Amino acid sequence: MNAAPIGIFDSGIGGLTVARAIYERLPMESTIYFGDTARVPYGPKSPDTVRRYSLEILDWLLTQGVKSVVVACNTSTAHALDALRAASPVPVLGVIEPGARAAAEATRGGGIGVIGTAGTVASQAYPAAIHRLLPAAKIEQVACPLFVPLVEEGWFEHPATRLVADEYLAPLRSMGADTLVLGCTHYPLLKPLLHRVMGESVALIDSAEETASSLAVALESAGTASGVEVPGRHRFVVSDDQARFLQVGARFLGERLGEPELVRLG
Amino acid sequence: MNAAPIGIFDSGIGGLTVARAIYERLPMESTIYFGDTARVPYGPKSPDTVRRYSLEILDWLLTQGVKSVVVACNTSTAHALDALRAASPVPVLGVIEPGARAAAEATRGGGIGVIGTAGTVASQAYPAAIHRLLPAAKIEQVACPLFVPLVEEGWFEHPATRLVADEYLAPLRSMGADTLVLGCTHYPLLKPLLHRVMGESVALIDSAEETASSLAVALESAGTASGVEVPGRHRFVVSDDQARFLQVGARFLGERLGEPELVRLG
Repeated sequence: MNAAPIGIFDSGIGGLTVARAIYERLPMESTIYFGDTARVPYGPKSPDTVRRYSLEILDWLLTQGVKSVVVACNTSTAHALDALRAASPVPVLGVIEPGARAAAEATRGGGIGVIGTAGTVASQAYPAAIHRLLPAAKIEQVACPLFVPLVEEGWFEHPATRLVADEYLAPLRSMGADTLVLGCTHYPLLKPLLHRVMGESVALIDSAEETASSLAVALESAGTASGVEVPGRHRFVVSDDQARFLQVGARFLGERLGEPELVRLG
Repeated sequence: MNAAPIGIFDSGIGGLTVARAIYERLPMESTIYFGDTARVPYGPKSPDTVRRYSLEILDWLLTQGVKSVVVACNTSTAHALDALRAASPVPVLGVIEPGARAAAEATRGGGIGVIGTAGTVASQAYPAAIHRLLPAAKIEQVACPLFVPLVEEGWFEHPATRLVADEYLAPLRSMGADTLVLGCTHYPLLKPLLHRVMGESVALIDSAEETASSLAVALESAGTASGVEVPGRHRFVVSDDQARFLQVGARFLGERLGEPELVRLG
């Protein structure tokens, strides 16, 4: 039993989908969410730079006494998870392994599509993780750089978003994918539209939910679950522009989004 | 007469439209283009952060012996031009004054629309600059955060881009704007589409061209024009991810884009 908070970080706002899944799955856990809004987005940045930024955030979260760290950003998980684990005295959980495991369980042999940022796709992290579980899996990846700004505009159902999705997902429909991994934490907000474009029979893998489940298992098995019977408290910290975080973050979390604190890194 | 290079900087790739306009207007001048690709985009960042980053780039350009600096980024011009001018021993030129002057000359009284990033629009820099020249001007601004990623995808004529433009520009059509200021260096690549959406009679103000003209005047009047009769040489420097800069930058500059050097700042 351990009432210390869980650290959650992302390049910006998208990781709030992971935070939300954690609040729902683990309502008695307290959290500190760090959004690196000064340096967002990580998607187009080089692996070295993403690693350096991620390690700076880990250092800061450790000064806050977190008992566990969730990397709520696919790009950072892809490029920095090993480095973070090597550097951290507390467990570090990424979003890619849980998503890959769920995809390997969901597919019925028809192929797995993976969508994400340019960085996540180029890293080959999802195909590698899925192939470890399912060596024969047929996997195709597509980078979808317009989805993040469309989500941040709140255009979840806009005709333009539909046209963009039609174009991005065409190769995944052609391959006959029966499973689609949402390999970016912004994408769960597009679920209804993605379902319509891909067809209702295609399983959408939401890494946020899978990661929250994995976190629950990890806390239980390590004996570090909160144990208290009062709802967790949630802090929000950003590296820049609190106003925009509040405005766009409300699309992700609604009223649960608290006033963010400002902490400058780097 | 001064053969030293001109420093040009932007948060990333967009400023290449300004670089291109300078190459065309001043073919005998050499340039160093700095794209802060590690920290792109500046649009959603706070004024303080944009100022800090811009001053770091100025310092670096000065170590390269530039004779003049062009801030080829609207957000940086909006937030940092005064600070850059105060800190720089060489002349610093932004993109907003030239664009504002051209808009004030082009309008026939029907109203001026200004489009840009969230940061440029919030700064009110264009309305302030236009009102100094034309106090009675009717001005309306719209932030168009999806235009940058659409341009970087190369979707200059995509139906999705048309839908996005229809929605963003609707208030400017309603106001009867006869002039549209392209207040972001990415937007000149959307000119044909913006013309169709706004109507061919609407004057599109391309800050890149206006800035190149202002630079020509400034160099002449300061007696620092190149004076040599050989074509200028052009260096490209980025703070991250040269591969992406080359790939996307080719949409802006074509074959004139040289292999970028990597310089880390901050």
